[in-house]
Amino acid sequence: MHKINDYSKSREYFERASKVIPSGIYGHQGPAEGCYIPVEAFPFFSEKAQGTYFWDVDGNKFIDYMCAYGPNILGYNDSDVDAAAAAQRKIGDCITAPSTKMIEFAELLVDTVATADWSFFAKNGNDVTTMAVMASRAYTHRKKIIFFKGYYHGVSPWTQKIDYAGIIEEDVCNNIYLQWNDFDAIQATFDKYKGEIAAVIGQPYMHGNFKDNTLPEKDFWQKVRKLCTDNDTILIIDDVRAGFRLDIAGSDHYFGFEADLICFCKALANGYNVSALCGKNFLKNAVSSMSYTGSYWLSAVPFAAGIACITKMREQNIPKLLNEKGTKLKEGLINTAKKHGYDLHVSGAASLFYLRLADDPTLMLHQKWIAECVKRGVFFTSHHNHFVNAALSDEDIAETIEIADEAFTEIKK
Amino acid sequence: MHKINDYSKSREYFERASKVIPSGIYGHQGPAEGCYIPVEAFPFFSEKAQGTYFWDVDGNKFIDYMCAYGPNILGYNDSDVDAAAAAQRKIGDCITAPSTKMIEFAELLVDTVATADWSFFAKNGNDVTTMAVMASRAYTHRKKIIFFKGYYHGVSPWTQKIDYAGIIEEDVCNNIYLQWNDFDAIQATFDKYKGEIAAVIGQPYMHGNFKDNTLPEKDFWQKVRKLCTDNDTILIIDDVRAGFRLDIAGSDHYFGFEADLICFCKALANGYNVSALCGKNFLKNAVSSMSYTGSYWLSAVPFAAGIACITKMREQNIPKLLNEKGTKLKEGLINTAKKHGYDLHVSGAASLFYLRLADDPTLMLHQKWIAECVKRGVFFTSHHNHFVNAALSDEDIAETIEIADEAFTEIKK
Repeated sequence: MHKINDYSKSREYFERASKVIPSGIYGHQGPAEGCYIPVEAFPFFSEKAQGTYFWDVDGNKFIDYMCAYGPNILGYNDSDVDAAAAAQRKIGDCITAPSTKMIEFAELLVDTVATADWSFFAKNGNDVTTMAVMASRAYTHRKKIIFFKGYYHGVSPWTQKIDYAGIIEEDVCNNIYLQWNDFDAIQATFDKYKGEIAAVIGQPYMHGNFKDNTLPEKDFWQKVRKLCTDNDTILIIDDVRAGFRLDIAGSDHYFGFEADLICFCKALANGYNVSALCGKNFLKNAVSSMSYTGSYWLSAVPFAAGIACITKMREQNIPKLLNEKGTKLKEGLINTAKKHGYDLHVSGAASLFYLRLADDPTLMLHQKWIAECVKRGVFFTSHHNHFVNAALSDEDIAETIEIADEAFTEIKK
Repeated sequence: MHKINDYSKSREYFERASKVIPSGIYGHQGPAEGCYIPVEAFPFFSEKAQGTYFWDVDGNKFIDYMCAYGPNILGYNDSDVDAAAAAQRKIGDCITAPSTKMIEFAELLVDTVATADWSFFAKNGNDVTTMAVMASRAYTHRKKIIFFKGYYHGVSPWTQKIDYAGIIEEDVCNNIYLQWNDFDAIQATFDKYKGEIAAVIGQPYMHGNFKDNTLPEKDFWQKVRKLCTDNDTILIIDDVRAGFRLDIAGSDHYFGFEADLICFCKALANGYNVSALCGKNFLKNAVSSMSYTGSYWLSAVPFAAGIACITKMREQNIPKLLNEKGTKLKEGLINTAKKHGYDLHVSGAASLFYLRLADDPTLMLHQKWIAECVKRGVFFTSHHNHFVNAALSDEDIAETIEIADEAFTEIKK
């Protein structure tokens, strides 16, 4: 039997944090915003990380299935990426003129990503999704953007919801929200707003929160691609979350189509701070015409890290490896659930699996099961997809299934 | 006499960059956007940096007065900041749960920055200026924002101009642009839009491009402060550029008033990638209510670097030191110009000096003089304020003045 974690220090630190930081911990890593449900099961602050594990401030060790919400793809503190970054750090990082590492990184992405004729680098996923929408408007001289309900494209006002704090009608009045996989609705919208749609923006499949993740239906993307081409509308794929966990050449490539613009962040440099917009040649001038930059955007260390990360991911075919690991875990979890008489739904790509215990529509049973896993050292979250990294071993998977087993026993009581 | 730089390798790399990166080099660090005028005088790519110098890919050494456009405040590769960052890097950076370094950094800023009751961290200056505007709207339930003409607050659509590529009317239709230092116009605008103005956003003084920088007139900020308070309007200071180069407690403190929200980036961690919004307690709930985060925002390494940077800046009173160095340089340059019969205007704070040779209204003579300086190893730019860092020595200042002297001789020919 696994021990049950104590979180007293995490709670003390959280009290201290709450005095000087709004929400104490903000965003998806914080207890307030929904990922940490039920909150009492979760640690709040980490002490250190290595490979597929992190340790919290109370000394509890976790097999980490959130991977910093994506960035950890090779394992925390990957020695190859860290060595490349450290070598660059010694000679310079954020300098008045950029390093040629920027060129090497752009060339590597152009060589790796199927749709990429060029690359542009920034810091947040949000920087490049925003840039993609602006570039679409600059190129088409149109305003309207089609989104798929359940999307997440960052935090800029244009991508938030009208009822969110600080958002005004003007921020979102050109947004059209359609159902995922509903091609007829897209077709009808193109007919209704003929010549007015600047872009369609979508994640490669629907990996939203609080519901089963959904892959594209057969030919869905191919039909959207054709509709966009026929109407001179830009097709933007937001691969910030799924990027390099489905296909090293981009998740559009995985699903058999080509985006006009594709956005990367998270797994691009194993946690070093960089994002990228890649795109087709016909949009290069539109991007060049924009006024778009930031204080650290040309820093060399994240480029060096990104080169090492992409190189290693190519050499080891990391997307394939992560999906094998994810599949093994998924099958183990489903079987364990079945043994206890539960119906565990595992949706989305295996490398980004989403969990839902289907025996209780209120989701309370699911949350209880997740809580019992986390308290025993498996870091799952209740209503967000998970992330697999390359350092996850067969032993880790076996231990995860053991803990899941104990957790099922516990919730049956 | 100083040698004249050769830039052949920079040019070759730029050709290579242009194939895979829109504009080759984008933003203020690129030749296309205005800072590198005249372009033939400037290097494009750096090889390494140390202290107050960087070396380009052709082996030319520069005394660097742009400091990566701000981040370099203690000197490139500062050993204290780098040691703190390296120690944190070993144990972890971007992890599923944040490090307590985040709390320490927030506490240090609250202790250091006069107006700070709390801190929130992000990655770009633009992240925190955007957040400040959103928080103002969330708090006031109003839309309109007052800007000062000549401003720069980042690259999000709300802060760009209507004629910029990719910007639509809805992005900027709630912006009101007023003349810097014109309090009567602000008063009149408040009267006209009674109860509609969410925020006034301004840099602590006008350090815009292409014209002499202008300090606030006597009591200007005090009057704006009172007007905002009387009308429940949020006063936002964008200290991304000037922060910690005027006053360790914030540039509002330097000018004798208190902002409600203050934005930092650049000099916050000597080039490590972090930005911060600090603010007053009455806005803490508004910030907590927002949905606002990013993939790398809780990474520990930049927090460790920021703690080391702020601590050192406090111990050594860096703003005072930078202004002394800047004043020495400024006086030397003005006298050298005078010796040649030229009238050099040096405006703004001494630590952020702006240069203009006033003998030719076309600015061509000024550009020619700057070019001759750069070609001899002093990295100035023509129409952007400069930045002083703590590693700049008296010998560097003396050499700069010598080179400026040669450049004056050259442009007289």
